[in-house]
Amino acid sequence: MNQPIWIGLLGFGTVGSGTLRILENRLEDIARRLGRPVKVKKVLVRDVTKPRALPIDPVLLTDNPAEILEDPEISIIVELMGGIHPALEYIKAALSSGKNVVTANKDLMAIHGRELFALAEANGLDLEFEASVAGGIPIIRPLKVCLAGNQIEDIKGIINGTTNFILTKMTQEGSDFSEVLKEAQALGYAEADPTADVEGLDAARKLAILASIAFNTRITLNDVHVEGITKISARDIQYASQMGYTIKLLGIAKETHGKVEARVHPAMIPNSHPLASVNDAFNAIFVKGDAVGETMFYGRGAGDMPTGSAVVGDIIDVARNIINGHTGRLSCTCYHQKPIKSIGEVEGKYYIRLLVTEKPGVLASIAGVFGDEGVSIQTLIQQEQFGNEAEIVLVTHKVQEENLQKALNILSEMPIVEKIGNVIRVEQG
Amino acid sequence: MNQPIWIGLLGFGTVGSGTLRILENRLEDIARRLGRPVKVKKVLVRDVTKPRALPIDPVLLTDNPAEILEDPEISIIVELMGGIHPALEYIKAALSSGKNVVTANKDLMAIHGRELFALAEANGLDLEFEASVAGGIPIIRPLKVCLAGNQIEDIKGIINGTTNFILTKMTQEGSDFSEVLKEAQALGYAEADPTADVEGLDAARKLAILASIAFNTRITLNDVHVEGITKISARDIQYASQMGYTIKLLGIAKETHGKVEARVHPAMIPNSHPLASVNDAFNAIFVKGDAVGETMFYGRGAGDMPTGSAVVGDIIDVARNIINGHTGRLSCTCYHQKPIKSIGEVEGKYYIRLLVTEKPGVLASIAGVFGDEGVSIQTLIQQEQFGNEAEIVLVTHKVQEENLQKALNILSEMPIVEKIGNVIRVEQG
Repeated sequence: MNQPIWIGLLGFGTVGSGTLRILENRLEDIARRLGRPVKVKKVLVRDVTKPRALPIDPVLLTDNPAEILEDPEISIIVELMGGIHPALEYIKAALSSGKNVVTANKDLMAIHGRELFALAEANGLDLEFEASVAGGIPIIRPLKVCLAGNQIEDIKGIINGTTNFILTKMTQEGSDFSEVLKEAQALGYAEADPTADVEGLDAARKLAILASIAFNTRITLNDVHVEGITKISARDIQYASQMGYTIKLLGIAKETHGKVEARVHPAMIPNSHPLASVNDAFNAIFVKGDAVGETMFYGRGAGDMPTGSAVVGDIIDVARNIINGHTGRLSCTCYHQKPIKSIGEVEGKYYIRLLVTEKPGVLASIAGVFGDEGVSIQTLIQQEQFGNEAEIVLVTHKVQEENLQKALNILSEMPIVEKIGNVIRVEQG
Repeated sequence: MNQPIWIGLLGFGTVGSGTLRILENRLEDIARRLGRPVKVKKVLVRDVTKPRALPIDPVLLTDNPAEILEDPEISIIVELMGGIHPALEYIKAALSSGKNVVTANKDLMAIHGRELFALAEANGLDLEFEASVAGGIPIIRPLKVCLAGNQIEDIKGIINGTTNFILTKMTQEGSDFSEVLKEAQALGYAEADPTADVEGLDAARKLAILASIAFNTRITLNDVHVEGITKISARDIQYASQMGYTIKLLGIAKETHGKVEARVHPAMIPNSHPLASVNDAFNAIFVKGDAVGETMFYGRGAGDMPTGSAVVGDIIDVARNIINGHTGRLSCTCYHQKPIKSIGEVEGKYYIRLLVTEKPGVLASIAGVFGDEGVSIQTLIQQEQFGNEAEIVLVTHKVQEENLQKALNILSEMPIVEKIGNVIRVEQG
């Protein structure tokens, strides 16, 4: 059987060209591994005449999706276009006509995962998506298979390279957000419109996928509470560092008493936590299971070759299943339906930085407001004076977010409170 | 189909009881995941009357292997006895009679992996062994499947918890090896006879398994060059720290120009390397692939529940294959036969600590010997005087180990060299 397993690529951007490059570089090795070669037959692009960074045989290119989706020789569709439409329609067409699918599309999986899995399962086909979360880092399969004996308790991930690059630079250089954003854009680490990254949306999509697998219940993008890093200032980072903390944009998902919470926001973590030293554009996912304890998966979360590595890993796995007649063996693992915790119900510790009018009794009034709402203060870090203003920094004990928000609402109405500088969650474990 | 998948456990020590505990705790969840429950039918022990830490129904216990190996209802044999005999014979009997095997036995896999795989393959059965390397950390499956598109360039692992605990304590407390070993023994981190751990043998077995998978060629224990940590002194750690390095016992495997090297020895790594902050009994495996770049897998490398987590992950995977009629899908991936590099051929940088007689011209003579053998010196760190002795510490440029050994042999014969205090490899990348 030297007949190739034929692939159709949808999209030929960064990840598409990385994937093709790896498949070409490793052609012989993959053929040896599987007993049959794996080859790209067609690549769908918008404009077949556009010059490409990676040299590609022009006969491979097509702008007609039917040439791929209706080719009976193609058994794996690799969707690397991104976005919801028309990727959703193409994947549905592929699964409906007996083709297996590999995708790196986090937007799609975070919203339409359930229906796509149902379709794959109904047709006995594979739908693999390792590349949709954290680029090259193996995390989907380790969670689905290797850690399957665990009740996962907690996931904390640095799953957006752009924001981790920005926060690392801010920490190392003491600079403010807007300054470092420009630097990141110049270096190609942030896009011209950085919204999806810096506002946490990209991380939220990945977290929805991770949480669904970890807790075996469907979590979609809408279930994730999202805050970005645009409000983090050099001052916050400085205070964090004084207290022995590092600020990271984390995707956090937890199960407590049968309810699941999923949230993306900046957080202070102790410098001794393994995530604290994950710097620059690197990603890492920290997973706590009841049996395995603490584990962490670290690597490059983006880029043509790292993400291509995850795509090709999936392609080889699907090809092996095709050769052995085993496709569809590992389908959706969301066999529970667990309720979602609202952000108000979430418990945590908070760092709060306030600007107040400097006069006697201010501290007492502020402490009184927190006390009335059941928010107890663990540490009062510092009071710094600027003219007739003072900066108060405090860290609360564990409290329900709802109560904290009530206290903050009251504070924000008080004449002595000039400004709530920032509120950042503190994550210990 | 509510018929259970029946398991036979061989061995009921630490990992055996962890495995049983997880299977019992997660019984319902696993049944939901697979559509069928997974249950332990029999457990082979040496003495059925011995009291057990984990309460176990006495009807499960047997001291007769035939009760498990010849039970037609049992479809998965889980071997957790360790050692070569009779584990080897039992596994062969299981595979020959149509039973799938899950094992945590590194000794066995590092020596008899090839024949066991051949037997599993011939019978279309699964042989899974995630727990044999680095306890609960998912590493075998990520290497075999997720990173399959990569040419792996380099593996560096902290894969022995005992020695990592000892080195961490030595670093934090400035104490010498023998002192910390006693502490580790008292805490249960080191065994009464610590030889296999502190001499690097345990790590060497795991490295042989990892290297075989990473480079798709069979590496057995005999192919691994092994040195332990017994000669590391508080002074070496102090010098390392001055130079910005941490000393770790590493398992290193690399492929260069088609040849594979595999070695276990103490090494200095830069403090900024992700492995440098892997402390206490934690393990981590750092993997560099041509596409994925740098990745790291971190977690607990031993213990009843972490290792049990890996065993149960394998059990669930095999059970899924049994249910779907897919066993034997992922067999041996050693489809190459690559030559092994001898330790003399290996290139590296070296830290050398010498005790010499303090008199004029000593440095020149020593530098001369290195120069004659083609060993060039990058840094001369310090000279400290003790009476009429001086300590010379130097780091070489990259050199072939053979040449370094020649220089060291000559030095050790020179009257001005009182003692070669230590020689430790320096690993940069």
